[in-house]
Amino acid sequence: MNDTASQFMQATTIQLRVRYAECDPQNVAHHGSYAAWFELARTELLREQGVIYRDLESQGLYFVVARLNIRYQKPARYDDLLDIEVTTTRCAASLVEHRYEVRLDGQTLTKAESTLVMIDGQGKPTRIPSELAEKIGVDEPD
Amino acid sequence: MNDTASQFMQATTIQLRVRYAECDPQNVAHHGSYAAWFELARTELLREQGVIYRDLESQGLYFVVARLNIRYQKPARYDDLLDIEVTTTRCAASLVEHRYEVRLDGQTLTKAESTLVMIDGQGKPTRIPSELAEKIGVDEPD
Amino acid sequence: MNDTASQFMQATTIQLRVRYAECDPQNVAHHGSYAAWFELARTELLREQGVIYRDLESQGLYFVVARLNIRYQKPARYDDLLDIEVTTTRCAASLVEHRYEVRLDGQTLTKAESTLVMIDGQGKPTRIPSELAEKIGVDEPD
Amino acid sequence: MNDTASQFMQATTIQLRVRYAECDPQNVAHHGSYAAWFELARTELLREQGVIYRDLESQGLYFVVARLNIRYQKPARYDDLLDIEVTTTRCAASLVEHRYEVRLDGQTLTKAESTLVMIDGQGKPTRIPSELAEKIGVDEPD
Repeated sequence: MNDTASQFMQATTIQLRVRYAECDPQNVAHHGSYAAWFELARTELLREQGVIYRDLESQGLYFVVARLNIRYQKPARYDDLLDIEVTTTRCAASLVEHRYEVRLDGQTLTKAESTLVMIDGQGKPTRIPSELAEKIGVDEPD
Repeated sequence: MNDTASQFMQATTIQLRVRYAECDPQNVAHHGSYAAWFELARTELLREQGVIYRDLESQGLYFVVARLNIRYQKPARYDDLLDIEVTTTRCAASLVEHRYEVRLDGQTLTKAESTLVMIDGQGKPTRIPSELAEKIGVDEPD
Repeated sequence: MNDTASQFMQATTIQLRVRYAECDPQNVAHHGSYAAWFELARTELLREQGVIYRDLESQGLYFVVARLNIRYQKPARYDDLLDIEVTTTRCAASLVEHRYEVRLDGQTLTKAESTLVMIDGQGKPTRIPSELAEKIGVDEPD
Repeated sequence: MNDTASQFMQATTIQLRVRYAECDPQNVAHHGSYAAWFELARTELLREQGVIYRDLESQGLYFVVARLNIRYQKPARYDDLLDIEVTTTRCAASLVEHRYEVRLDGQTLTKAESTLVMIDGQGKPTRIPSELAEKIGVDEPD
């Protein structure tokens, strides 16, 4: 890993309508709902990079979440049309790190970061294949 | 299939605390939360019948829900300690039917019925194996 | 209620990408995930009819699900881009009925029907206000 | 805030069966499922401390999650009977911090920490009332 590790930062923003089922008695999106939103954003980021995550799994390659850290600053509410921005901040060996920002009308509601690990069908961490690594911005595939 | 198909009715009741995350802005359990409760009750009913559903899947046998019909009469609320009763009402060939009742302090809140179909690893309906059929009360395993 | 009760049928179709978090170990959308999809479709149908459901709740009017009946014919899978069609099939007094169809590439996967009841802030069924009734197609608001 | 802030550490452990609906196509509990488990554990910890969280909300006092950090070390699987341990690690003014450990047969699967903020009905942070503070172990209620 070196200082240029984050030079291939890539990002996308998806729009997402907060569902009623995702909200809790406080009339705000439940804090547990965000994990699925971030995952959805990652799927779309991969798609823009030319990678269909579903196809990776068909090939026996899986990303698992090893860490998720979320800071909830302002609540999101039912029917809010949110922007979920995901940025790949670091990729190396079998790891990919992302950061997230949830915004409503340009105002930041939530920030988060996650670490994914690529595993094989036996659940063992495995090096991200170089062809995939190039697409998602891994610096040191080998 | 004959009229005696439901003679082996078996039932169990599980207790379940309504989670905050399962409730919606109306301050009641979201109607989509019940499907997971019924599933949990079925898992426990199978366990009492000597069947670990997880082991069935390991053997390439799966139950899928083909129909779910829920009538919500009274709301369940956060922190309510509910009784979820599940009864096997009919079993035949590759089908198992259940009915459910959700109660709070003896008062019925919700009634439901479901139909499960046993499928194999290729997603094709398959006859419930006779050893399993005997345990869960299938009348005509062959 | 009379035979013309369904003459104001209104419908819309939303598109929805199946989330990873909505899928289960069988690699298909969990049967409990559909309730939130149907709800999302109803919210959009109301929006097209000029009704923001969130605003209704602000005014102390709520729709609760009294019945949900789902028939799962074919599985939906992670990353499938589904069409969820919702049709208002009957509206009268405090009731609204819908039917749903989930399709993938034109093929029907799932059919469902629901009954909603309008309640007030005390949880009592209440007549759908005539202004709202006209928008959503209630035949006999008074 | 001082160094003795964590001297009133309190803890409890709940048991929880992993639901099928909580698992994903990798055949493990989805990483988004844990937030609800931790919340359930907090509710039970409060109950042991003589506090019914539902009653707090009735009084217009709410805990909101301001931060959640989860490190997933080993997967939990469907039907696993997990121990979820929650420990109050710090309480002061309007904040409560917890840490969590998810274990299966004594083996740690997941560790996490969260920060809750007490808010009032208008969503403003508010000092934890001294009577409540004493029960949950707040050091400096005033």
